Amino acid sequence: MVYLDDAYVQIAPEEYKSYQENVRNAHEYLHSGQMDMSGWVEQPQKINESYLKNILAAAENIRAQSTVLVVLGIGGSYLGPRAFLEWMEDEFQHTDKSPKIYFAGWNLSGTYHHELINKIMDEEISVCVISKSGTTMETAEAFLLLKEILIKKYGEDYSKRIYAITDPVSGALRKEAKEKGYVTFDLESDIGGRYSFLTAVGLLPACVAGYDIQKIVLGAQKAYQACMPQEIEQNAAYRYGVGRRILNERGKVIEVFCAYEPKMQHLLEWLKQLFGESEGKENKGIFPTSLVFSRDLHSMGQFLQEGTPVFFETVLSVATPQKDVSYDGAINTFNEQNELVRKGVLQAHSKGKTPVFTLTAGKMCEETFGYWTYFFEKACAMSCLLLGVDPFNQPGVEVYKAEVKKILTAK
Amino acid sequence: MVYLDDAYVQIAPEEYKSYQENVRNAHEYLHSGQMDMSGWVEQPQKINESYLKNILAAAENIRAQSTVLVVLGIGGSYLGPRAFLEWMEDEFQHTDKSPKIYFAGWNLSGTYHHELINKIMDEEISVCVISKSGTTMETAEAFLLLKEILIKKYGEDYSKRIYAITDPVSGALRKEAKEKGYVTFDLESDIGGRYSFLTAVGLLPACVAGYDIQKIVLGAQKAYQACMPQEIEQNAAYRYGVGRRILNERGKVIEVFCAYEPKMQHLLEWLKQLFGESEGKENKGIFPTSLVFSRDLHSMGQFLQEGTPVFFETVLSVATPQKDVSYDGAINTFNEQNELVRKGVLQAHSKGKTPVFTLTAGKMCEETFGYWTYFFEKACAMSCLLLGVDPFNQPGVEVYKAEVKKILTAK
Repeated sequence: MVYLDDAYVQIAPEEYKSYQENVRNAHEYLHSGQMDMSGWVEQPQKINESYLKNILAAAENIRAQSTVLVVLGIGGSYLGPRAFLEWMEDEFQHTDKSPKIYFAGWNLSGTYHHELINKIMDEEISVCVISKSGTTMETAEAFLLLKEILIKKYGEDYSKRIYAITDPVSGALRKEAKEKGYVTFDLESDIGGRYSFLTAVGLLPACVAGYDIQKIVLGAQKAYQACMPQEIEQNAAYRYGVGRRILNERGKVIEVFCAYEPKMQHLLEWLKQLFGESEGKENKGIFPTSLVFSRDLHSMGQFLQEGTPVFFETVLSVATPQKDVSYDGAINTFNEQNELVRKGVLQAHSKGKTPVFTLTAGKMCEETFGYWTYFFEKACAMSCLLLGVDPFNQPGVEVYKAEVKKILTAK
Repeated sequence: MVYLDDAYVQIAPEEYKSYQENVRNAHEYLHSGQMDMSGWVEQPQKINESYLKNILAAAENIRAQSTVLVVLGIGGSYLGPRAFLEWMEDEFQHTDKSPKIYFAGWNLSGTYHHELINKIMDEEISVCVISKSGTTMETAEAFLLLKEILIKKYGEDYSKRIYAITDPVSGALRKEAKEKGYVTFDLESDIGGRYSFLTAVGLLPACVAGYDIQKIVLGAQKAYQACMPQEIEQNAAYRYGVGRRILNERGKVIEVFCAYEPKMQHLLEWLKQLFGESEGKENKGIFPTSLVFSRDLHSMGQFLQEGTPVFFETVLSVATPQKDVSYDGAINTFNEQNELVRKGVLQAHSKGKTPVFTLTAGKMCEETFGYWTYFFEKACAMSCLLLGVDPFNQPGVEVYKAEVKKILTAK
């Protein structure tokens, strides 16, 4: 379901092979269950009917009682659901078959939140708050703001409009949810934010918006099977994971995630977090960045062709886009033209000595999204283990949180 | 109007000074008028009343006859006007005081253009097409698509709904405009796309949307004056331009443009083009990338703190955001909290040995936008001249265009 083309990367078969033993060891370690926060590895196999039924029931309630759902979260709790909805939804209009979904708590802009409140004030609102601890600042602030509005609008019934996705046992949000009687979903304590799409984090908003979450799960399960072989040659995720290690050792310090479809923009943002936060440790790692083509061929195209050659590209492509358009007398439809440009650029950039991975899926649908998230998680984990860093922690984030706390308490 | 804080960059005064002679020479060269495509340098002083009057008149016509304006362009012809409108407009709703503005022709996605057409079909449409040659593929394709719709809706009157911004004399679009009688504006032949904001490219869409374009021009004129001193100490644009050269020589190959305001996202994209396309030549240049905080503190924060230390940050900050919000009992408003986070992160990242430039303006308004675009253009030109590359050409873009053409004609 993902075809990996690495013909333009220039890695010899024996280079890949030299990693085989390490890949085998890393694979076994990853599937051993011994690693902290590795719960996502077996997640596609663990999702059961009753879990999905609870999500469907909650989504049904939300749809019945709301014209607007505000999803509060940051990091993977924002980028995952946002990327999926952008991927599926019409860019320019909302169909009214489901509540309109807005995201908040992913920034601290007063302007953003003022304008959002202004927009939704007269709507029927439900809130989905996603936070393991309940103390993540951005999400907690936005939650306080939204709660105030719910209480003003609905009085004591406000708590029936809050859906909390949080730690099964501990944390401030779990405690509050228990006291106030919010509907809750477990954010498993052994799954980190950037690996959480295949939980209620990704599935509840998708379900509210009217998409088939069983297909998302099916995609992830297919990826689980496809990413199981220990042989590099039989496992595109591992092959790609090894490939980027080899390029890094050749001096490439930037990975440019590219797509020729504007609706993949937040998927690229999600990838930046997945790889950046998993790998950027101990002064190591490849700096992930993203470009949307063909827009950015007219902005960064010059640099990609002739700038400091410290980067490689990973292009995400879909064989069958959702819709197409043309005009009378056109030689090609827009999508056909887009595909020809992609091929031309592949030639031009590889002639410019830029290594390019291309990952191609079939359709732009629920199943592909589920497949890709798991595929990249697996590739990323392998790549990090080969680099010798723990893919599942984020010690550096604590440093900045401590500095912010210092300033806040000094005030 | 822009305050540069480089205390966290760790450059000694004598390091700056060692560039003074070169800066003087580059400044004189830049203002000599000898360089190809340097028309933007004196542009703030050259804009006159009649130029602005023509834009106002065209905007008035567009507003009178349309509920929708579609702006067609790519590169600077897209990113400039898009960045300005994003900067000024409400994120969540349109006020109906002016036509709704959509952008097309900046990508080749069939899905995007299909959904756009579907959305606007029943509206009263005008089209603003921006292309120096008229043959830029993405824009030309979208123009053919939109023209077909205009002709279906308005018959022979279609041409009264087309506003072309193009080369004063030559090119396919100028020719067509003359034949069909479109209203036209000159895209001066000595101003490149990424330096074109202060022409009809930026000003016409801004004016249609109801913003005060004289304030934009005023901002640029203030920047023109502020960026005139040849002394590095007295010219923040040159100081910043020199600073990034020094960091590049220390091995920093990535510049991360950051903002704490989601409405600056496309301004950061515009900066990526300005710097990437101006500087990425002869295997040289700093790879520009962008992050929106605090969102990306929860995605790329780990890498910024502890990843491969090959980057520096340039933070764009505004002292007085447009709006603010709070809830009962809050210690800080959202914007106050946002500002405290910015200060905490500055501490944390500089402790993590990342150099950070901070550029602060007063208000988030038309004048600041005009000021910043010119400020960065001047800083970028200086930085490129010090590196020894021509800031105003883009030879590498031609390479990929040739490859695409080869594939298109082979078909």
